[in-house]
Amino acid sequence: MTESLDAKQKREEALLSAFLEMVRSPDGDFGVIDRLAAASADLESLQLMIQSLSRHPQGKLAFATYPRVGVVDLEQLALLPSHTLGYTYAQHMIKNNLKPLQMKPSNNDYEFLGAHITETHDIWHVITGFETNIIGEIQLEAFYVSQMRFSRFWLALITKNLLKTVVYDIERSTEYMDAIAQGWLLAKHAQPLFGIDWKLLWEKPLTELRDSLNIKIL
Amino acid sequence: MTESLDAKQKREEALLSAFLEMVRSPDGDFGVIDRLAAASADLESLQLMIQSLSRHPQGKLAFATYPRVGVVDLEQLALLPSHTLGYTYAQHMIKNNLKPLQMKPSNNDYEFLGAHITETHDIWHVITGFETNIIGEIQLEAFYVSQMRFSRFWLALITKNLLKTVVYDIERSTEYMDAIAQGWLLAKHAQPLFGIDWKLLWEKPLTELRDSLNIKIL
Repeated sequence: MTESLDAKQKREEALLSAFLEMVRSPDGDFGVIDRLAAASADLESLQLMIQSLSRHPQGKLAFATYPRVGVVDLEQLALLPSHTLGYTYAQHMIKNNLKPLQMKPSNNDYEFLGAHITETHDIWHVITGFETNIIGEIQLEAFYVSQMRFSRFWLALITKNLLKTVVYDIERSTEYMDAIAQGWLLAKHAQPLFGIDWKLLWEKPLTELRDSLNIKIL
Repeated sequence: MTESLDAKQKREEALLSAFLEMVRSPDGDFGVIDRLAAASADLESLQLMIQSLSRHPQGKLAFATYPRVGVVDLEQLALLPSHTLGYTYAQHMIKNNLKPLQMKPSNNDYEFLGAHITETHDIWHVITGFETNIIGEIQLEAFYVSQMRFSRFWLALITKNLLKTVVYDIERSTEYMDAIAQGWLLAKHAQPLFGIDWKLLWEKPLTELRDSLNIKIL
Protein backbone atom coordinates (compact mmCIF):
# COMPACT_ATOMS: atom_id res chain seq x y z
CA MET A 1 0.00 0.00 0.00
CA THR A 2 1.49 3.31 -1.05
CA GLU A 3 1.25 6.30 1.23
CA SER A 4 -0.83 9.18 -0.13
CA LEU A 5 0.91 12.48 -0.83
CA ASP A 6 -1.01 14.09 1.99
CA ALA A 7 -0.08 11.36 4.49
CA LYS A 8 3.55 11.62 3.38
CA GLN A 9 3.65 15.37 3.98
CA LYS A 10 2.02 14.99 7.40
CA ARG A 11 4.55 12.33 8.33
CA GLU A 12 7.46 14.52 7.20
CA GLU A 13 6.14 17.48 9.20
CA ALA A 14 5.69 15.27 12.28
CA LEU A 15 9.29 14.07 11.95
CA LEU A 16 10.61 17.64 11.56
CA SER A 17 8.61 18.71 14.57
CA ALA A 18 9.86 15.81 16.77
CA PHE A 19 13.37 16.61 15.58
CA LEU A 20 13.06 20.28 16.57
CA GLU A 21 11.61 19.38 19.95
CA MET A 22 14.73 17.26 20.51
CA VAL A 23 17.06 20.11 19.47
CA ARG A 24 15.41 22.40 22.03
CA SER A 25 15.45 19.79 24.83
CA PRO A 26 18.32 18.90 27.16
CA ASP A 27 20.19 15.69 26.23
CA GLY A 28 18.87 12.50 27.83
CA ASP A 29 15.14 13.41 27.86
CA PHE A 30 13.73 9.96 27.09
CA GLY A 31 10.18 11.17 26.37
CA VAL A 32 11.53 13.31 23.53
CA ILE A 33 13.70 10.44 22.24
CA ASP A 34 10.67 8.13 22.20
CA ARG A 35 8.66 10.68 20.18
CA LEU A 36 11.52 11.03 17.69
CA ALA A 37 11.75 7.23 17.43
CA ALA A 38 8.01 6.98 16.75
CA ALA A 39 8.11 9.77 14.14
CA SER A 40 11.10 8.07 12.43
CA ALA A 41 9.40 4.68 12.16
CA ASP A 42 7.40 4.93 8.92
CA LEU A 43 6.52 1.68 7.23
CA GLU A 44 8.57 2.38 4.09
CA SER A 45 11.90 2.99 5.84
CA LEU A 46 11.30 0.07 8.25
CA GLN A 47 10.69 -2.25 5.30
CA LEU A 48 13.82 -1.01 3.53
CA MET A 49 15.78 -1.57 6.75
CA ILE A 50 14.47 -5.10 7.24
CA GLN A 51 15.19 -6.00 3.59
CA SER A 52 18.68 -4.59 3.86
CA LEU A 53 19.46 -6.35 7.16
CA SER A 54 18.08 -9.65 5.78
CA ARG A 55 20.63 -9.65 2.94
CA HIS A 56 23.21 -10.90 5.46
CA PRO A 57 22.69 -14.51 6.67
CA GLN A 58 22.90 -13.42 10.32
CA GLY A 59 20.17 -10.83 9.80
CA LYS A 60 18.03 -13.26 7.82
CA LEU A 61 18.26 -15.86 10.58
CA ALA A 62 17.43 -13.23 13.19
CA PHE A 63 14.19 -12.30 11.40
CA ALA A 64 13.34 -16.03 11.23
CA THR A 65 14.00 -16.79 14.90
CA TYR A 66 13.71 -13.44 16.76
CA PRO A 67 16.59 -14.08 19.21
CA ARG A 68 16.01 -11.99 22.32
CA VAL A 69 18.42 -11.13 25.11
CA GLY A 70 15.67 -11.81 27.63
CA VAL A 71 16.13 -11.35 31.35
CA VAL A 72 19.69 -10.39 32.23
CA ASP A 73 21.07 -10.99 35.72
CA LEU A 74 23.82 -8.39 36.11
CA GLU A 75 24.96 -9.81 39.44
CA GLN A 76 25.55 -13.21 37.83
CA LEU A 77 27.38 -11.68 34.84
CA ALA A 78 29.59 -9.69 37.20
CA LEU A 79 30.87 -13.02 38.58
CA LEU A 80 32.29 -14.06 35.19
CA PRO A 81 36.06 -13.66 34.54
CA SER A 82 37.04 -10.05 33.85
CA HIS A 83 38.02 -10.64 30.20
CA THR A 84 34.52 -11.80 29.20
CA LEU A 85 31.77 -9.90 27.41
CA GLY A 86 29.36 -10.63 30.26
CA TYR A 87 31.62 -9.22 32.98
CA THR A 88 32.42 -6.10 30.94
CA TYR A 89 28.76 -5.55 30.13
CA ALA A 90 27.78 -5.90 33.80
CA GLN A 91 30.47 -3.38 34.82
CA HIS A 92 29.31 -0.98 32.09
CA MET A 93 25.70 -1.18 33.30
CA ILE A 94 26.58 -0.83 36.99
CA LYS A 95 29.06 2.03 36.40
CA ASN A 96 26.49 3.98 34.37
CA ASN A 97 23.67 3.14 36.77
CA LEU A 98 21.70 1.42 33.99
CA LYS A 99 19.27 -1.49 34.21
CA PRO A 100 18.61 -3.93 31.34
CA LEU A 101 15.24 -3.08 29.80
CA GLN A 102 12.49 -5.68 29.87
CA MET A 103 11.04 -5.42 26.37
CA LYS A 104 7.76 -7.03 25.30
CA PRO A 105 7.92 -10.26 23.22
CA SER A 106 8.28 -9.75 19.45
CA ASN A 107 5.30 -10.84 17.37
CA ASN A 108 6.45 -9.56 13.99
CA ASP A 109 9.54 -8.23 12.18
CA TYR A 110 8.87 -4.60 13.16
CA GLU A 111 8.53 -5.41 16.84
CA PHE A 112 11.65 -7.58 16.74
CA LEU A 113 13.63 -4.81 15.00
CA GLY A 114 12.68 -2.26 17.67
CA ALA A 115 13.12 -4.59 20.64
CA HIS A 116 16.43 -6.03 19.43
CA ILE A 117 17.98 -2.60 18.77
CA THR A 118 16.80 -1.26 22.11
CA GLU A 119 17.87 -4.19 24.26
CA THR A 120 21.29 -4.58 22.58
CA HIS A 121 22.21 -0.87 22.61
CA ASP A 122 24.48 -1.12 25.65
CA ILE A 123 26.05 -4.31 24.32
CA TRP A 124 26.96 -2.30 21.20
CA HIS A 125 28.55 0.30 23.49
CA VAL A 126 30.67 -2.41 25.11
CA ILE A 127 31.65 -4.19 21.92
CA THR A 128 32.61 -0.98 20.07
CA GLY A 129 34.30 0.52 23.12
CA PHE A 130 32.30 3.75 22.63
CA GLU A 131 31.53 5.43 25.95
CA THR A 132 28.20 6.79 27.14
CA ASN A 133 29.25 10.46 27.10
CA ILE A 134 28.19 12.69 24.20
CA ILE A 135 31.28 11.84 22.11
CA GLY A 136 30.74 8.10 22.56
CA GLU A 137 27.05 8.45 21.71
CA ILE A 138 27.88 10.32 18.49
CA GLN A 139 30.49 7.68 17.56
CA LEU A 140 27.89 4.97 18.14
CA GLU A 141 25.19 6.89 16.21
CA ALA A 142 27.51 7.05 13.17
CA PHE A 143 28.20 3.33 13.62
CA TYR A 144 24.44 2.64 13.56
CA VAL A 145 23.89 4.80 10.45
CA SER A 146 26.42 2.62 8.63
CA GLN A 147 25.15 -0.71 9.93
CA MET A 148 21.42 0.09 9.91
CA ARG A 149 20.88 1.52 6.44
CA PHE A 150 17.61 3.42 5.92
CA SER A 151 17.20 4.18 9.63
CA ARG A 152 15.94 7.74 9.93
CA PHE A 153 16.29 7.60 13.71
CA TRP A 154 20.05 7.26 14.09
CA LEU A 155 20.84 9.82 11.40
CA ALA A 156 18.34 12.16 13.08
CA LEU A 157 20.28 11.84 16.34
CA ILE A 158 23.59 12.74 14.66
CA THR A 159 21.88 15.65 12.90
CA LYS A 160 20.36 16.82 16.18
CA ASN A 161 23.79 16.83 17.81
CA LEU A 162 25.28 18.78 14.89
CA LEU A 163 22.48 21.35 14.92
CA LYS A 164 22.88 21.87 18.66
CA THR A 165 26.58 22.47 18.00
CA VAL A 166 25.85 24.95 15.19
CA VAL A 167 23.47 27.01 17.33
CA TYR A 168 24.66 26.63 20.91
CA ASP A 169 28.15 25.16 21.04
CA ILE A 170 30.26 25.81 17.93
CA GLU A 171 33.48 25.34 19.94
CA ARG A 172 32.85 21.58 19.90
CA SER A 173 32.47 21.11 16.14
CA THR A 174 35.89 19.48 15.65
CA GLU A 175 35.34 16.93 18.42
CA TYR A 176 31.90 16.03 17.10
CA MET A 177 33.06 15.67 13.49
CA ASP A 178 35.97 13.50 14.65
CA ALA A 179 33.47 11.32 16.53
CA ILE A 180 31.31 10.93 13.41
CA ALA A 181 34.30 9.97 11.26
CA GLN A 182 35.53 7.49 13.91
CA GLY A 183 32.18 5.71 14.30
CA TRP A 184 31.62 5.67 10.56
CA LEU A 185 35.01 4.19 9.72
CA LEU A 186 34.84 1.60 12.51
CA ALA A 187 31.46 0.40 11.20
CA LYS A 188 32.67 0.28 7.60
CA HIS A 189 35.25 -2.35 8.49
CA ALA A 190 33.19 -4.22 11.08
CA GLN A 191 30.99 -7.25 10.53
CA PRO A 192 27.27 -6.58 11.07
CA LEU A 193 26.25 -6.61 14.73
CA PHE A 194 22.53 -6.77 13.98
CA GLY A 195 20.97 -10.13 14.81
CA ILE A 196 23.74 -11.53 16.99
CA ASP A 197 22.33 -13.70 19.78
CA TRP A 198 24.35 -12.07 22.52
CA LYS A 199 22.99 -14.17 25.41
CA LEU A 200 25.01 -17.11 24.01
CA LEU A 201 28.23 -15.09 24.13
CA TRP A 202 28.46 -13.71 27.69
CA GLU A 203 31.33 -16.06 28.56
CA LYS A 204 33.41 -15.27 25.46
CA PRO A 205 36.53 -13.10 25.78
CA LEU A 206 35.70 -9.55 24.65
CA THR A 207 38.88 -9.19 22.56
CA GLU A 208 38.12 -12.45 20.75
CA LEU A 209 34.61 -11.24 19.92
CA ARG A 210 35.96 -7.91 18.70
CA ASP A 211 38.52 -9.66 16.51
CA SER A 212 35.90 -11.94 15.00
CA LEU A 213 33.73 -8.88 14.24
CA ASN A 214 36.72 -6.96 12.87
CA ILE A 215 36.25 -4.19 15.42
CA LYS A 216 39.52 -2.39 15.95
CA ILE A 217 39.44 -0.32 19.14
CA LEU A 218 40.73 3.22 18.52
CA MET B 1 31.24 43.77 24.68
CA THR B 2 29.34 40.70 25.82
CA GLU B 3 26.02 39.85 24.23
CA SER B 4 23.03 40.03 26.59
CA LEU B 5 21.13 36.83 27.32
CA ASP B 6 18.12 38.18 25.47
CA ALA B 7 20.18 39.12 22.38
CA LYS B 8 21.81 35.68 22.46
CA GLN B 9 18.46 33.90 22.52
CA LYS B 10 17.13 36.05 19.67
CA ARG B 11 20.24 35.31 17.62
CA GLU B 12 19.91 31.57 18.27
CA GLU B 13 16.24 31.61 17.25
CA ALA B 14 17.09 33.58 14.07
CA LEU B 15 19.74 31.01 13.19
CA LEU B 16 17.35 28.08 13.80
CA SER B 17 14.73 29.80 11.68
CA ALA B 18 17.15 30.50 8.77
CA PHE B 19 18.29 26.88 9.04
CA LEU B 20 14.73 25.55 8.82
CA GLU B 21 13.95 27.81 5.87
CA MET B 22 16.93 26.24 4.12
CA VAL B 23 15.76 22.67 4.93
CA ARG B 24 12.37 23.43 3.37
CA SER B 25 13.84 25.13 0.26
CA PRO B 26 15.17 23.50 -2.90
CA ASP B 27 18.98 23.28 -3.08
CA GLY B 28 20.71 26.22 -4.78
CA ASP B 29 18.35 28.99 -3.59
CA PHE B 30 20.93 31.75 -3.06
CA GLY B 31 18.57 34.08 -1.18
CA VAL B 32 18.10 31.42 1.49
CA ILE B 33 21.86 30.71 1.62
CA ASP B 34 22.55 34.43 2.11
CA ARG B 35 20.09 34.57 5.01
CA LEU B 36 21.70 31.52 6.62
CA ALA B 37 25.14 33.11 6.17
CA ALA B 38 23.94 36.34 7.81
CA ALA B 39 22.32 34.47 10.72
CA SER B 40 25.55 32.42 11.21
CA ALA B 41 27.82 35.47 11.38
CA ASP B 42 27.63 36.52 15.02
CA LEU B 43 30.56 38.55 16.33
CA GLU B 44 31.68 35.93 18.83
CA SER B 45 32.09 33.07 16.36
CA LEU B 46 33.68 35.38 13.77
CA GLN B 47 36.25 36.53 16.32
CA LEU B 48 37.01 32.94 17.34
CA MET B 49 37.43 32.07 13.65
CA ILE B 50 39.77 34.99 12.95
CA GLN B 51 41.86 34.18 16.04
CA SER B 52 42.07 30.55 15.05
CA LEU B 53 43.00 31.28 11.40
CA SER B 54 45.62 33.81 12.54
CA ARG B 55 47.51 31.15 14.51
CA HIS B 56 48.97 29.96 11.20
CA PRO B 57 51.54 32.35 9.60
CA GLN B 58 49.67 32.27 6.28
CA GLY B 59 46.41 33.30 7.95
CA LYS B 60 48.15 35.95 10.03
CA LEU B 61 49.70 37.48 6.91
CA ALA B 62 46.35 37.38 5.13
CA PHE B 63 44.68 39.41 7.88
CA ALA B 64 47.56 41.90 7.68
CA THR B 65 47.48 42.33 3.89
CA TYR B 66 43.96 41.29 2.77
CA PRO B 67 45.05 39.53 -0.44
CA ARG B 68 42.12 39.54 -2.86
CA VAL B 69 41.63 37.51 -6.04
CA GLY B 70 40.33 40.65 -7.76
CA VAL B 71 39.08 40.67 -11.33
CA VAL B 72 39.54 37.28 -13.02
CA ASP B 73 39.67 37.01 -16.81
CA LEU B 74 38.49 33.45 -17.50
CA GLU B 75 39.28 33.72 -21.23
CA GLN B 76 42.90 34.58 -20.45
CA LEU B 77 43.19 31.77 -17.87
CA ALA B 78 41.77 29.32 -20.40
CA LEU B 79 44.78 30.04 -22.63
CA LEU B 80 47.24 28.75 -19.99
CA PRO B 81 48.70 25.20 -20.37
CA SER B 82 46.21 22.51 -19.40
CA HIS B 83 48.14 21.33 -16.33
CA THR B 84 47.93 24.73 -14.58
CA LEU B 85 45.63 25.87 -11.78
CA GLY B 86 44.43 28.78 -13.93
CA TYR B 87 43.42 26.62 -16.88
CA THR B 88 41.65 24.06 -14.66
CA TYR B 89 39.84 26.82 -12.76
CA ALA B 90 38.69 28.46 -16.04
CA GLN B 91 37.39 25.11 -17.33
CA HIS B 92 35.60 24.48 -14.02
CA MET B 93 33.88 27.87 -14.17
CA ILE B 94 32.93 27.59 -17.85
CA LYS B 95 31.70 23.98 -17.53
CA ASN B 96 29.50 24.91 -14.56
CA ASN B 97 28.33 28.15 -16.16
CA LEU B 98 29.76 30.19 -13.27
CA LYS B 99 31.14 33.73 -13.29
CA PRO B 100 33.76 34.97 -10.79
CA LEU B 101 32.02 37.19 -8.23
CA GLN B 102 33.06 40.83 -7.97
CA MET B 103 33.22 41.35 -4.22
CA LYS B 104 33.50 44.76 -2.56
CA PRO B 105 36.92 45.81 -1.17
CA SER B 106 37.71 44.62 2.38
CA ASN B 107 37.96 47.35 5.00
CA ASN B 108 38.30 45.15 8.08
CA ASP B 109 38.97 41.56 9.15
CA TYR B 110 35.30 40.56 9.02
CA GLU B 111 34.82 41.88 5.50
CA PHE B 112 38.04 40.20 4.36
CA LEU B 113 37.00 36.88 5.90
CA GLY B 114 33.66 36.92 4.07
CA ALA B 115 35.02 38.18 0.75
CA HIS B 116 38.00 35.80 0.73
CA ILE B 117 35.91 32.71 1.49
CA THR B 118 33.30 33.66 -1.10
CA GLU B 119 35.68 34.51 -3.93
CA THR B 120 37.95 31.48 -3.37
CA HIS B 121 35.13 28.89 -3.03
CA ASP B 122 35.46 27.60 -6.59
CA ILE B 123 39.26 27.54 -6.31
CA TRP B 124 38.79 25.27 -3.28
CA HIS B 125 36.58 23.03 -5.46
CA VAL B 126 39.37 22.80 -8.04
CA ILE B 127 42.22 22.27 -5.59
CA THR B 128 40.38 19.59 -3.58
CA GLY B 129 38.94 17.94 -6.69
CA PHE B 130 35.46 18.00 -5.11
CA GLU B 131 32.75 18.43 -7.74
CA THR B 132 29.82 20.85 -7.70
CA ASN B 133 27.14 18.17 -7.34
CA ILE B 134 25.58 17.51 -3.92
CA ILE B 135 28.20 14.90 -2.96
CA GLY B 136 31.06 17.26 -3.87
CA GLU B 137 29.44 20.12 -1.96
CA ILE B 138 29.08 17.95 1.16
CA GLN B 139 32.72 16.81 0.85
CA LEU B 140 33.78 20.46 0.59
CA GLU B 141 31.52 21.52 3.49
CA ALA B 142 33.22 18.94 5.73
CA PHE B 143 36.58 20.20 4.49
CA TYR B 144 35.60 23.77 5.49
CA VAL B 145 34.39 22.66 8.94
CA SER B 146 37.85 21.23 9.59
CA GLN B 147 39.81 24.15 8.17
CA MET B 148 37.54 26.98 9.37
CA ARG B 149 37.03 26.16 13.02
CA PHE B 150 34.15 27.97 14.77
CA SER B 151 32.29 28.58 11.50
CA ARG B 152 28.60 28.02 12.17
CA PHE B 153 27.82 28.41 8.47
CA TRP B 154 29.61 25.40 7.01
CA LEU B 155 28.49 23.04 9.76
CA ALA B 156 24.94 24.35 9.26
CA LEU B 157 25.14 23.38 5.58
CA ILE B 158 26.23 19.81 6.40
CA THR B 159 23.50 19.60 9.03
CA LYS B 160 20.91 20.88 6.55
CA ASN B 161 21.93 18.20 4.06
CA LEU B 162 21.69 15.49 6.72
CA LEU B 163 18.29 16.67 7.92
CA LYS B 164 16.96 16.70 4.35
CA THR B 165 18.22 13.12 4.06
CA VAL B 166 16.55 12.09 7.32
CA VAL B 167 13.17 13.49 6.33
CA TYR B 168 12.98 13.25 2.55
CA ASP B 169 15.70 10.98 1.21
CA ILE B 170 16.93 8.32 3.65
CA GLU B 171 18.12 6.13 0.76
CA ARG B 172 21.11 8.48 0.34
CA SER B 173 22.41 8.41 3.92
CA THR B 174 25.39 6.17 3.16
CA GLU B 175 26.58 8.34 0.26
CA TYR B 176 26.27 11.51 2.33
CA MET B 177 28.08 10.08 5.34
CA ASP B 178 30.87 8.81 3.05
CA ALA B 179 31.15 12.33 1.62
CA ILE B 180 31.43 13.85 5.11
CA ALA B 181 34.14 11.37 6.12
CA GLN B 182 36.06 11.96 2.86
CA GLY B 183 36.05 15.76 3.12
CA TRP B 184 36.88 15.64 6.81
CA LEU B 185 39.84 13.27 6.42
CA LEU B 186 41.22 15.15 3.39
CA ALA B 187 41.18 18.42 5.35
CA LYS B 188 42.80 16.82 8.39
CA HIS B 189 45.91 16.01 6.40
CA ALA B 190 45.94 19.12 4.21
CA GLN B 191 47.75 22.39 4.84
CA PRO B 192 45.43 25.35 5.49
CA LEU B 193 43.99 26.86 2.31
CA PHE B 194 42.76 30.01 4.04
CA GLY B 195 44.74 33.12 3.13
CA ILE B 196 46.51 31.78 0.05
CA ASP B 197 47.00 34.53 -2.56
CA TRP B 198 45.69 32.45 -5.45
CA LYS B 199 46.12 35.12 -8.14
CA LEU B 200 49.91 34.58 -7.90
CA LEU B 201 49.49 30.85 -8.56
CA TRP B 202 47.41 30.60 -11.75
CA GLU B 203 50.40 29.41 -13.80
CA LYS B 204 51.50 26.72 -11.31
CA PRO B 205 50.88 23.04 -12.14
CA LEU B 206 47.79 21.86 -10.24
CA THR B 207 49.42 18.60 -9.10
CA GLU B 208 52.40 20.52 -7.72
CA LEU B 209 50.09 22.81 -5.73
CA ARG B 210 48.14 19.83 -4.40
CA ASP B 211 51.37 18.10 -3.36
CA SER B 212 52.64 21.20 -1.56
CA LEU B 213 49.29 21.45 0.29
CA ASN B 214 49.28 17.71 1.05
CA ILE B 215 45.99 17.22 -0.75
CA LYS B 216 45.69 13.64 -1.88
CA ILE B 217 42.99 13.27 -4.50
CA LEU B 218 40.67 10.34 -3.71
